Amino acid sequence: MPNFKLTIEYDGTDFCGWQIQRANERTVQAEIKKALEKIVKHPVTVIGAGRTDSGVHALGQVAHVRLSSSITPFVLLKALNANLPEDIAILGVKKVSDVFHAQFSARSKIYRYTILNRESRCAKERKFCLHIRQPIDIPMLTKAARVFIGRHDFRAFRGSATSQKRRDKSKTTVRTVNKIVLRRRKDFIFCDIEANGFLYKMVRNIVGTLLDVSAGRIRPKDLKAIMASGDRRKAGKTAAAHGLCLYKVNY
Amino acid sequence: MPNFKLTIEYDGTDFCGWQIQRANERTVQAEIKKALEKIVKHPVTVIGAGRTDSGVHALGQVAHVRLSSSITPFVLLKALNANLPEDIAILGVKKVSDVFHAQFSARSKIYRYTILNRESRCAKERKFCLHIRQPIDIPMLTKAARVFIGRHDFRAFRGSATSQKRRDKSKTTVRTVNKIVLRRRKDFIFCDIEANGFLYKMVRNIVGTLLDVSAGRIRPKDLKAIMASGDRRKAGKTAAAHGLCLYKVNY
Repeated sequence: MPNFKLTIEYDGTDFCGWQIQRANERTVQAEIKKALEKIVKHPVTVIGAGRTDSGVHALGQVAHVRLSSSITPFVLLKALNANLPEDIAILGVKKVSDVFHAQFSARSKIYRYTILNRESRCAKERKFCLHIRQPIDIPMLTKAARVFIGRHDFRAFRGSATSQKRRDKSKTTVRTVNKIVLRRRKDFIFCDIEANGFLYKMVRNIVGTLLDVSAGRIRPKDLKAIMASGDRRKAGKTAAAHGLCLYKVNY
Repeated sequence: MPNFKLTIEYDGTDFCGWQIQRANERTVQAEIKKALEKIVKHPVTVIGAGRTDSGVHALGQVAHVRLSSSITPFVLLKALNANLPEDIAILGVKKVSDVFHAQFSARSKIYRYTILNRESRCAKERKFCLHIRQPIDIPMLTKAARVFIGRHDFRAFRGSATSQKRRDKSKTTVRTVNKIVLRRRKDFIFCDIEANGFLYKMVRNIVGTLLDVSAGRIRPKDLKAIMASGDRRKAGKTAAAHGLCLYKVNY
């Protein structure tokens, strides 16, 4: 069965995340599965590069699907976009080798967290950014964020105990962060984090901790000890889901 | 009574346009009036730089309001953003001279029309752009658009007869277009049109006509005759409302 790589954009606002959950919850994976099965008329398993939480968006989620169909990538792209709800768009379809696996073949993933940093709210981007009124010192935070770069045990930055039990089956909590880039464009701040993998809620906990550093609630020099403690309660708040976006998956 | 200039952003998706209409229709002007009257506790008249149609957005709408209140611009900004629905944001509040009038003091207005020009749909920006699959030749359209630049009778590009009767009380249909700039940024095309004033639906009719030129339905060399005819039926289709945004008002 030919293997297809799908590149997917979604507005996560009205989804209970990526992963199929209970039957009455709307998820991106379930919508794509439904559309595919309507097109190819056989059961399809949709494997994503990673789960995104409820309310989190994607500009570059990737999935792979095996279809017993002679459909071409271009026709599949058109058929999917015609059959999916408007808050999911398929950006690309590519035939890939049999060994390609959306999750296991991924070298790294980039998440983008977007902050609107000014006094007034915005209307157009309101569902895609967190509004922070207090000035944010980018050079200071960039320096503070260096503590996360490299191979570390990120146990202190994973989801809390309850959510862990439900979601995080990872045996190891060691991950390698390649890059954290903070950049201002007009009144928006983008925080791009690239890693070989992420623990449940890891990006939102890192961003929340950096925002606590920005607000003076955590001292930059304490970050190392917080990481070493492995204690979630010592790290900062979890930043809101709607500011987060799965930006790109590298293979 | 001190005169305040408000700069306003709104997501027009869920509004019946700017202007107060029947009581059961949700409009931006009515929401701002309601919020202001709650804050200053006296009846307020909100005068906008121009009406925007149902579904049209704004990043830089301007209004003026006279308030019998000693409220400072900063406090008014905060109070308005706290009291307005999330699809309206006040970007700035300024005390202005008594003679400032949002509509009559305006030197020009800039509207931006956004087109997504590629095969696949998008999810995040879907409510703010028109999706056109066929390739668009920017240099060709830029050249064709020159016919609109300058002082012309735009009668052929105003709203159709029915809507005219209801909305367009303008005595003259002569307007001066200062600039039309078409620009591509990744898969998006922005068409910025600046004029001293616009007839009802004029931007959407100019853009729709340019898209008909792009699709080969209208020849560039016929545009001059279409304009001279003053006949709405000779011009192109009206481009969809959700691609349009009142970008800036110059004073």
